[in-house]
Amino acid sequence: MSQRQIYLNDIPLDEARQRLTQALTEVGRWQPLPAESIPLDQALGRVTAAPVWAKLSSPHYHAAAMDGYAVRARDTDSANESRPVQLALDPSGPAQYVDTGDPLPAWADAVIPIENIQLIPQSAIHNLQSAIELRASLTPWSHVRPMGEDMVATELVLPANHVLRPVDLGAIAGCGYGVVAVRRQPRVAIIPTGSELVPIGSEVKAGDILEYNSLVLAAQVQQWGGLPARYPIVPDDFDRIKTAVAEAATTHDLVLLNAGSSAGSEDFSARVVESLGTLLVHGVAVRPGHPVIMGMLQLPMTHYQCPIIGVPGYPVSAALTGEIFVEPLLAKWLGRAPQSPPTLDATITRKVLSPLGDDEYMRVTVGRVGGRVVATPLARGAGVISSLVRADGIVRIPRHHEGLNAGDNVTVHLYRSPDDLARTIVAIGSHDLTLDLMAQFLAEKGGGMRLSSANVGSQGGLVALRRGEAHLAGSHLLDPDTGDYNLSYIRKYLPDTPVTLITLVGREQGLITKPGNPKQIRTLADLARADVTFVNRQRGAGTRVLLDFEIGKIGLKPEEIKGYEREEYTHLAVAAAVASGVADAGLGIAAAARALSLDFVPLFKERYDLVIPREYVIAPLLRPLLDLLHDVDFRAQVAARPGYDVTPMGNVVAEIA
Amino acid sequence: MSQRQIYLNDIPLDEARQRLTQALTEVGRWQPLPAESIPLDQALGRVTAAPVWAKLSSPHYHAAAMDGYAVRARDTDSANESRPVQLALDPSGPAQYVDTGDPLPAWADAVIPIENIQLIPQSAIHNLQSAIELRASLTPWSHVRPMGEDMVATELVLPANHVLRPVDLGAIAGCGYGVVAVRRQPRVAIIPTGSELVPIGSEVKAGDILEYNSLVLAAQVQQWGGLPARYPIVPDDFDRIKTAVAEAATTHDLVLLNAGSSAGSEDFSARVVESLGTLLVHGVAVRPGHPVIMGMLQLPMTHYQCPIIGVPGYPVSAALTGEIFVEPLLAKWLGRAPQSPPTLDATITRKVLSPLGDDEYMRVTVGRVGGRVVATPLARGAGVISSLVRADGIVRIPRHHEGLNAGDNVTVHLYRSPDDLARTIVAIGSHDLTLDLMAQFLAEKGGGMRLSSANVGSQGGLVALRRGEAHLAGSHLLDPDTGDYNLSYIRKYLPDTPVTLITLVGREQGLITKPGNPKQIRTLADLARADVTFVNRQRGAGTRVLLDFEIGKIGLKPEEIKGYEREEYTHLAVAAAVASGVADAGLGIAAAARALSLDFVPLFKERYDLVIPREYVIAPLLRPLLDLLHDVDFRAQVAARPGYDVTPMGNVVAEIA
Repeated sequence: MSQRQIYLNDIPLDEARQRLTQALTEVGRWQPLPAESIPLDQALGRVTAAPVWAKLSSPHYHAAAMDGYAVRARDTDSANESRPVQLALDPSGPAQYVDTGDPLPAWADAVIPIENIQLIPQSAIHNLQSAIELRASLTPWSHVRPMGEDMVATELVLPANHVLRPVDLGAIAGCGYGVVAVRRQPRVAIIPTGSELVPIGSEVKAGDILEYNSLVLAAQVQQWGGLPARYPIVPDDFDRIKTAVAEAATTHDLVLLNAGSSAGSEDFSARVVESLGTLLVHGVAVRPGHPVIMGMLQLPMTHYQCPIIGVPGYPVSAALTGEIFVEPLLAKWLGRAPQSPPTLDATITRKVLSPLGDDEYMRVTVGRVGGRVVATPLARGAGVISSLVRADGIVRIPRHHEGLNAGDNVTVHLYRSPDDLARTIVAIGSHDLTLDLMAQFLAEKGGGMRLSSANVGSQGGLVALRRGEAHLAGSHLLDPDTGDYNLSYIRKYLPDTPVTLITLVGREQGLITKPGNPKQIRTLADLARADVTFVNRQRGAGTRVLLDFEIGKIGLKPEEIKGYEREEYTHLAVAAAVASGVADAGLGIAAAARALSLDFVPLFKERYDLVIPREYVIAPLLRPLLDLLHDVDFRAQVAARPGYDVTPMGNVVAEIA
Repeated sequence: MSQRQIYLNDIPLDEARQRLTQALTEVGRWQPLPAESIPLDQALGRVTAAPVWAKLSSPHYHAAAMDGYAVRARDTDSANESRPVQLALDPSGPAQYVDTGDPLPAWADAVIPIENIQLIPQSAIHNLQSAIELRASLTPWSHVRPMGEDMVATELVLPANHVLRPVDLGAIAGCGYGVVAVRRQPRVAIIPTGSELVPIGSEVKAGDILEYNSLVLAAQVQQWGGLPARYPIVPDDFDRIKTAVAEAATTHDLVLLNAGSSAGSEDFSARVVESLGTLLVHGVAVRPGHPVIMGMLQLPMTHYQCPIIGVPGYPVSAALTGEIFVEPLLAKWLGRAPQSPPTLDATITRKVLSPLGDDEYMRVTVGRVGGRVVATPLARGAGVISSLVRADGIVRIPRHHEGLNAGDNVTVHLYRSPDDLARTIVAIGSHDLTLDLMAQFLAEKGGGMRLSSANVGSQGGLVALRRGEAHLAGSHLLDPDTGDYNLSYIRKYLPDTPVTLITLVGREQGLITKPGNPKQIRTLADLARADVTFVNRQRGAGTRVLLDFEIGKIGLKPEEIKGYEREEYTHLAVAAAVASGVADAGLGIAAAARALSLDFVPLFKERYDLVIPREYVIAPLLRPLLDLLHDVDFRAQVAARPGYDVTPMGNVVAEIA
């Protein structure tokens, strides 16, 4: 630990980029890569390295534009309905059959389409030659594609720095080329380091980390037009990392060294860069992702320098480092414009604090709800790759901002097309596995509709509906006074909104315990035992309301339950807490227990409803979702899960004005 | 010709699609292809064939989220600034060093970051063991990534029918998989037919057609997720085409048979389809592209049927047939949504007639000029592939419309991103090769700005400026009264618009003649000779104004010049007309003559200016273009072209209020 650098020296994002640009400029590498000539059938998506000037005109001769007869227009001048003109068929005129694309005979200047003539097999007028008869005159160059109609030799067909599309390849071929000069693809080495890493697909034990950052970075490089090379995992060993980096630098345009970029005891990246060249940046004030390293590697026996980026180990940081630093560099080398995702203005739904001094890249989901576009922040942990999967886009919070207030307007840099977002049903509220199944069924059968669901508990969902942030909310809120579900809460939280309350499913709630229930936890009263640790759901969750109601009935107080204060946000998270040994028991649904092979003690039956504002019940957007409630396959799959009762599925419980 | 079918039976687009869908449904092929399991590192862009449910939680153990020390939170309860707590380092507690990602020891429930402690090498309190000292308490689970924080085993990670992005691959790996089930890629055979076809890159003679439709179709199939196979060119021979199609059908999911789909003498496609199965559609009421064929091929000895699409031969028709018919079919087979390009509302700049009964796909350029988005129709010929290259998007004119009026609002289905369009400088007016060079220099140096130029002649450009359709116009309009250029025309056409008039270049105009000038054409007076055929520029072109002015001076009348009525739209088109033998002479610039190796007889010097409304002169959009006028490289390249004088380049001729 003597080598430890405890503090990174974070510099602003712009300055970090500037240092790398400057260093590359100094060695003449801040410019497009050399050109290579490749066959057109391999050129899709490549970037032109030079303008394409037409070598050949297209067409390169006067061509018949229709199947018909080549004629001289002046020979047709006198033709009309009452006075047809006959022209004899003869290769030297006055008429000759031509297919579309045939060259016009030198004596001809027009084509009459076949459907506009009468064929006279043997014409007396023309001494028993075949002839055509026409009843309308032609103007010169009718139905002819004159030479150069499409492209004229020497004209500009495509500029340099153009990303080649299918039709571009056709145009280049059409003006006389079989090959095209494109920028060489940047070669990017990706070196994962870390003794704790194991390859994807491995069996894992505690402490093993599946190494998938190199998979994500390689796919990014590929997507952006580079050629990635994934290196085998290098353990945390200074010399071995140095050897791998030095080798990679000789055969690649860029080295990405993954992890080891922060300041822990086994973080060698910065030292390796210093030992092989110049360390330009160690730490960037960007979240997530701040322990980014940049440097230039000096190759022995040559003046060539190879840039290196030390990519942080957390997967969200790694992926965003790719987007922020690698993509613009590849764009520069390829000569194309950096990618600029489409943007959308939205209203942020929650207050967000962001550290002053850091540029933050916040993942959000986006939905069109009512007339508004709303953006809801996702989990901000740098280890939560699923937040990038679920993200509809990124909101950038500049470093001179301390955060955002709910209701602020923000610009979202989109990961999905605006069209996709217009087809997204936003569910915010209680979580149930049935919602996952709905998302899956919609993806397969929903005609393009998509379900985005955020789990904030039942009351959180009603609040989201009140704020106009969601199309529907899943809710299972027990009213202790009436024993009924949801109705009184809807009247309280949504007094002014007409809603329809439809049952999604009936389900069992009970105690989730370790396999075999070793502590023999059978009732809520057992939660007060000294040897039992509980794990709770968050305030506002329907399950929490149920717990509080039921312990109240038996006179148990929260402070008597060890672990009451530890809150999880989903049934599965509660089950995971039990499975991992953090807790002995939690209240939840049977499906969550079975999913993690845990025991389940059924205690209560409850109703899980969908709360849907009236305006959305009749909207086409929600139709496929509501249809699922009556879909035989869907009902069968839900019924097959333990603890679910689909009998009430689709019942309209109430229309609340 | 006895086999000729003269009339195709065009049916509406929707019905044509419906017939193919119906036929595929009947044989169970209107559904996604079977799944295959592939390694994650090959899965970018592929489509999931099944939902991905987490196999492993992530993290799959409680993991340290920081480099620091694992502790029990309750051991820190009493720590504060004035009363530090010391905890001994011991693998069984109360404190142990952990790197980020290390598993939390079973006895610990929190991590204190390394920067928040003081290391005490040998603590008296702990009998000379090493210890850490801390001055603040921790809450349980601080700086710990609990098991399942990212993904909990059994939860839905990705639905089926999802196109895999880099981060998705990471999530799938992170929840325990090394492979993923994706849809098999549709295999598409592309068979070019036609005795007139020659492979791309060939030397060509009149009548040869470069076969590049299969190149474009293959690139489209690739782009849309299919596996294309290009067949060698098959000559127009019924049996050979039939053999190729029958062979392709046995090993592919779809056969694209290119050309031979209309009703000419050598069009065998429909007969081949009939002989091998069922002809469903012969002719679709869509422009361009109506001679589309669809059918189902019945494979011998099996119930398997393979769909076939007969693709028209004109390149624009072929490419649009791909977009309209092939892409949705591939999407269905892959299980993904059909691509829906972004759309933009725009104002159409010209009246457009469209045949009633046909769905027309009109190519347009799009520009943001002033506050408006304007769409300008491009050449509509089905042979003009360059119109698809230059197109910014497509306007669909439904079959029950007879066309559009100038000023109508239209929806443009975009080929370029709205961002690209916001960076596009729209030039409409006279054409000069210098504008091609400008486009090229902008692509290389213009910081993302793009020049889109439409050639409608000088007066057409001034009209476009008046209508707010362009940012600038190239103009070389001689005022016969003053001998000066452009000024009087600007006052006439743009009386209310403050403009800046800047000289782009001085250039020579003269007679373009055949190599060696065989007819010894020396002066405009020679154009009246009986043995001389002229080719003219269109009304409104500066060169036309010049011609009319100069022939007036010598008393020559238009009707005395043979070919005066044949109009071309660019200098290069005039030169091409001379090169091809259509005409003996045309008036134009030296560069056009030299480009096609023609002779040039210099007659006049003229000034070619840029007319730019004042509001755009100062706009950032045009800055890179105006900077080019003073760019040494640019001036040198223009000066190197014959007949150009760059001395006046960049001179501000007038500021007209």
